[in-house]
Amino acid sequence: MARIIQCVPNFSEGKDKEIIEKIVEEIRRMDEVKLLDYSMDKDHNRSVVTFIGEPEKVIEAAFNASKVASELIDMRTHTGGHPRMGATDVIPLIPISDVTMEECVKYSKELGRRIGEELGISVFLYEKSAETPARENLADIRRGQYEGMADKLKQEEWQPDFGPNILNEKAGVTAVGARMPLVAFNVNLGTDDVEIAKKIAKSVRARTGGFTYCKAIGLEIKERNIVQVSMNMVDYTQTSLFRVFDTIEREANRYGVNVIGSEIIGLVPMQALVDVADYYLKLENFNSSQILEKRMFE
Amino acid sequence: MARIIQCVPNFSEGKDKEIIEKIVEEIRRMDEVKLLDYSMDKDHNRSVVTFIGEPEKVIEAAFNASKVASELIDMRTHTGGHPRMGATDVIPLIPISDVTMEECVKYSKELGRRIGEELGISVFLYEKSAETPARENLADIRRGQYEGMADKLKQEEWQPDFGPNILNEKAGVTAVGARMPLVAFNVNLGTDDVEIAKKIAKSVRARTGGFTYCKAIGLEIKERNIVQVSMNMVDYTQTSLFRVFDTIEREANRYGVNVIGSEIIGLVPMQALVDVADYYLKLENFNSSQILEKRMFE
Repeated sequence: MARIIQCVPNFSEGKDKEIIEKIVEEIRRMDEVKLLDYSMDKDHNRSVVTFIGEPEKVIEAAFNASKVASELIDMRTHTGGHPRMGATDVIPLIPISDVTMEECVKYSKELGRRIGEELGISVFLYEKSAETPARENLADIRRGQYEGMADKLKQEEWQPDFGPNILNEKAGVTAVGARMPLVAFNVNLGTDDVEIAKKIAKSVRARTGGFTYCKAIGLEIKERNIVQVSMNMVDYTQTSLFRVFDTIEREANRYGVNVIGSEIIGLVPMQALVDVADYYLKLENFNSSQILEKRMFE
Repeated sequence: MARIIQCVPNFSEGKDKEIIEKIVEEIRRMDEVKLLDYSMDKDHNRSVVTFIGEPEKVIEAAFNASKVASELIDMRTHTGGHPRMGATDVIPLIPISDVTMEECVKYSKELGRRIGEELGISVFLYEKSAETPARENLADIRRGQYEGMADKLKQEEWQPDFGPNILNEKAGVTAVGARMPLVAFNVNLGTDDVEIAKKIAKSVRARTGGFTYCKAIGLEIKERNIVQVSMNMVDYTQTSLFRVFDTIEREANRYGVNVIGSEIIGLVPMQALVDVADYYLKLENFNSSQILEKRMFE
């Protein structure tokens, strides 16, 4: 398989289809990059674009899209329900195949530097790219939103990582950062007692003592008369799907309940599933370069 | 993922590197085709080439390679330890990704027809492409070898599927056929009693009442002081790795022995592993188009 990263930029325009088409065209026209999806939210006045590809080309496409956004979106007149601080509000970069997190951080810095220097936009590095813990969380960076950014940029602790420390009034501020892919993974239990799902969710999620890279809630699936442990696996390389699944199965058993199925919602990196096969088959020395399809595009 | 088939042609030349390089060059130079491996066997005087790619391009490359082989290899002077009947002896086509067996059969016929008509070589369709059960087994087609083919082609039951019914003396006869990918899968048992491995192999292999698409033997791994059920899974879509693995685990348990690991030797199609993950996680409605990497090359 080729080296692949994913990019999911958010733009502060969700109504004018012509503007979003011009932004998306910068991604569509790039070789070795594949546009997977884009969606406009009118209430939030915000669009989310998803694409994957060869890392250097993804960076190039993300830069070009940000440039067009800075030309066509004016933050001085922007309103919408979602917190936002820039025309290109945030650009997450996500390692998918044969790219390390360290490399992804390097790409995010290269992209951030270009947006800062060439477009004259203040850029903050967040998540895994953050230089200090205070910048890891996007919500902290974005606090005060666009309207508060002129003042925020004057504060010593909010000097941007790249670009000017004076607000670009039209384009606002952009956050760029590397993060792991998120896998939406739900496990269904053969009971209608939602309390059991809630107790199990509590036992597997990080916040209440469970697995570090697992977020979980318990909820009812009324139309099927069952309950579900609904999860976001925020780093499948460190908290594996199989380990959480096995734990849920044991915990359910303790309540006399069966796991009747599971679901992966949306996209999943191949390696997350290969890890599952590797575990249950007790594979020795398996290397994902043994997967035929990986050879095709290496 | 793009549509991918694998092709593993065998050529009756294993000594003259210059000839094999010229044949392989026809594969190497083709766009959307990836040469994975080629190996020359001097004793067998035979070479095996492995490549994958977009089906139409694979067919084109296989045809071009056969053409060069028919020009550079002379069967009238060929000797070697392996049974053979043609300069291009056999061309298996194997569905890997987003290609059905039926489509692969269609491609094999297209390739066979071209070799027959354009190169004037008698072609037999074998395995899944065979028009009659008598031609399913390559050994039956090849019986008599090159030296017996002039007579064999005169027999009514051995009229070729494509090409002349008179032997092309220089190029011989070629077999073309679609078959499933073979997965070499071994399961290791925590005992030094090879009889247990042999009994379990007997219980899972087709020949002695086990799974239809499983070939298995029991053997010792002396350097590790363990035993192994060594298998060829000849159609993982019908006899799954997980089902055989689970059965071996239960059978081993019956002898008080643990499965301590397993191995996949060589290449494996991604779907064979995705099926394993799907089974153990009890996934509901999972579609392999949810795998991010598949989107990149679709």
